[in-house]
Amino acid sequence: MSAEIICIGTELLLGDILNTNCHYLAQELAALGIPHYYQSVVGDNIERIHQVISIAIARSSMLIFTGGLGPTPDDLTTEAIASFFNTPLEEKANIVADIEAKFASTGRVMTSSNRKQALVPQGAETLPNPLGTAPGIIWQIPREDQESLTIMTFPGVPSEMKRMWRDTSVPYLKNQGWGQDLIHSQMLRFRGISESALAEKVAEVFTLSNPTVAPYASLGEVRLRVSAKAKSESEAIALIEPVAQKIKDIVGLDYFGKDEESLSSVVGSLLKSENRTVAVAESCTGGGLGSILTENAGSSAYFKGGVIAYDNLIKINLLEVNSDDLDQFGAVSSAIAYQMANGVKKIFQSDYGISITGIAGPDGGTELKPVGLIYIGLAVPEKQTIVKQFQLGNKRERSLIRKLSAYQALDLLRRYLLSD
Amino acid sequence: MSAEIICIGTELLLGDILNTNCHYLAQELAALGIPHYYQSVVGDNIERIHQVISIAIARSSMLIFTGGLGPTPDDLTTEAIASFFNTPLEEKANIVADIEAKFASTGRVMTSSNRKQALVPQGAETLPNPLGTAPGIIWQIPREDQESLTIMTFPGVPSEMKRMWRDTSVPYLKNQGWGQDLIHSQMLRFRGISESALAEKVAEVFTLSNPTVAPYASLGEVRLRVSAKAKSESEAIALIEPVAQKIKDIVGLDYFGKDEESLSSVVGSLLKSENRTVAVAESCTGGGLGSILTENAGSSAYFKGGVIAYDNLIKINLLEVNSDDLDQFGAVSSAIAYQMANGVKKIFQSDYGISITGIAGPDGGTELKPVGLIYIGLAVPEKQTIVKQFQLGNKRERSLIRKLSAYQALDLLRRYLLSD
Repeated sequence: MSAEIICIGTELLLGDILNTNCHYLAQELAALGIPHYYQSVVGDNIERIHQVISIAIARSSMLIFTGGLGPTPDDLTTEAIASFFNTPLEEKANIVADIEAKFASTGRVMTSSNRKQALVPQGAETLPNPLGTAPGIIWQIPREDQESLTIMTFPGVPSEMKRMWRDTSVPYLKNQGWGQDLIHSQMLRFRGISESALAEKVAEVFTLSNPTVAPYASLGEVRLRVSAKAKSESEAIALIEPVAQKIKDIVGLDYFGKDEESLSSVVGSLLKSENRTVAVAESCTGGGLGSILTENAGSSAYFKGGVIAYDNLIKINLLEVNSDDLDQFGAVSSAIAYQMANGVKKIFQSDYGISITGIAGPDGGTELKPVGLIYIGLAVPEKQTIVKQFQLGNKRERSLIRKLSAYQALDLLRRYLLSD
Repeated sequence: MSAEIICIGTELLLGDILNTNCHYLAQELAALGIPHYYQSVVGDNIERIHQVISIAIARSSMLIFTGGLGPTPDDLTTEAIASFFNTPLEEKANIVADIEAKFASTGRVMTSSNRKQALVPQGAETLPNPLGTAPGIIWQIPREDQESLTIMTFPGVPSEMKRMWRDTSVPYLKNQGWGQDLIHSQMLRFRGISESALAEKVAEVFTLSNPTVAPYASLGEVRLRVSAKAKSESEAIALIEPVAQKIKDIVGLDYFGKDEESLSSVVGSLLKSENRTVAVAESCTGGGLGSILTENAGSSAYFKGGVIAYDNLIKINLLEVNSDDLDQFGAVSSAIAYQMANGVKKIFQSDYGISITGIAGPDGGTELKPVGLIYIGLAVPEKQTIVKQFQLGNKRERSLIRKLSAYQALDLLRRYLLSD
């Protein structure tokens, strides 16, 4: 069996709403181990819905519809499905009663258009909707010489759809034997290495079949998803672990965490385990590094605070940066990053001090100091303060340069904590 | 002509990512007036991509692909398109040079797998990617007895896709005669009013047919989209303006800006026009308010900087908060917000000082001071410092409470600047 998700609604074609239903159902199908190769979106149009159904039944044996179950004339899903299979609709008295009761409970009277929501193709079961007036259907249609067809319909309202899926569809599918073989994944996360360089380094694991390994690139990081199919989560983890370990051994420090672990949570854990604290001195990031460092609850254990030294006078007065050096080297320089890191470490009495100074753009760049040039200072306990220069790309947007600067700074601290 | 969006990527089928690309392209097609009846999603599999193409070309004359342009073996889009149309791929020297230059600009060396990204079907044009290494294609394929087929490909990374669409595809499509009868929209943005309250206030404009008005709710703000259909942008704007003005007159200060105007850009413009400066003292937001205030280029004209006073000692030593008051009232209190705002205004010699102290959770809440309790202080020129208390919801996530706190603080300053 394989499933296909079919989302119905002209509002999806017009871009009025984001298709979060499809995303949710895709995750759920993956968790149950139900293969799923196609998703389709089509508008509120009988002929085109028929066309999509005829394509889907030739390649999938479970059709999951969302949308088009409302009371208005453009809600056509049930009608389109019934007419495609030449099956008459019949009104279910229990649905009518349920809709009436729901209206009554909020002091309203059911309108005649809501009666339409009680129509179900002959032979189909009702898929109850505890939260709204539009129930769905579960319909098994036997087919000659092949697997029977399963059809499920859900309203487009995400909360109703999710509740119906969990309450009725999942137990139904488990009863049919699905979700026995589950798919469990671990997401390994990397920084400081490109997707292509990572893929070349760990090429050998891409040929595995269980677990499989697939790469993803996103803002400032690359990820490898290691997915195993097994009878239980523990069995899946047993398949995943050795492969994940092999990858980590090959890649080294560019691996920073897995699944929900973020750069800030990893740095936080490292600081906490060593009973160390950090403070930040930010120029171009304007507070972004502090904001990331305090994402996680409990960050007050290792984060003391910081100075947002946007104005040069603040660098001098609060961070004890030398004003002659500011004149001579400019605020975006190795010397100033060095002094900012030392200054904030001293004033906040922290173990580590991180500074960021750079040109986030789009203006302010020069030939010698182009947009994207960033200096990061790291003052550490007992040893010499480190300054690193980065060129984050002069074509990049201000917001991206600022974000990458903050992550780069956090990553510098992470690598120091791990290798010290 | 009608367009079909085809998103390629097993990560979409597994539910790893939300398909925001499809949403964006749907909006853009609607704005250009290009009919669009179907969207398809398929995994990284040549055979199934072929199947989707064969269905799409029978019902649509423009195929817009996203995803699968990366350097790894599972990136198959270009290859699948070329093989479907029996067309050989050729390497474009200018793309190779461009990729090499991009790697060089960040101090890296291009890997051999990136060469694959320079392959283009014979006869197709390159669709340049200013932000990344994966260019797309625009390919016109003549067909007997029917409209020619147009194929465009984009990488899956949303920022790259959007930039390529705006820079190259939109001008190309306009050149082909699309977007003549254009739809122009203005997005009006509101804070401090619920979607339903706003909808009731401006109910009369919802019945208009050109322009139409539609409400949208999102994080911390409500929006009204006013869309007009006309022969030119200026004609559309002439239809939109009186309706937008009527809405603003009805709503008053809860309206804060339109289109790309953000709370921070609006506050920045107000400060700049009055030649005033601001500094921030942040506790629970950890730098988030400073980060938002420095989103816009040129923010150094009005933003002096701030203190991230996570540790109470910093509040005392740097912000001159009274330690007895800290003991008596606690860090999350009206008294401390008051002193933090005054302290940062004084130390940074700014005209305004904003402070935030609160309980972002998930831990640290008590019966008297639950999660979500926030105090915002606003020190102003010549008048009494203001402190406001907010309860942002004790069921909300830490990240949301932090974001809403920062926006609430900015909005307090905006309202003060507008009514002072």
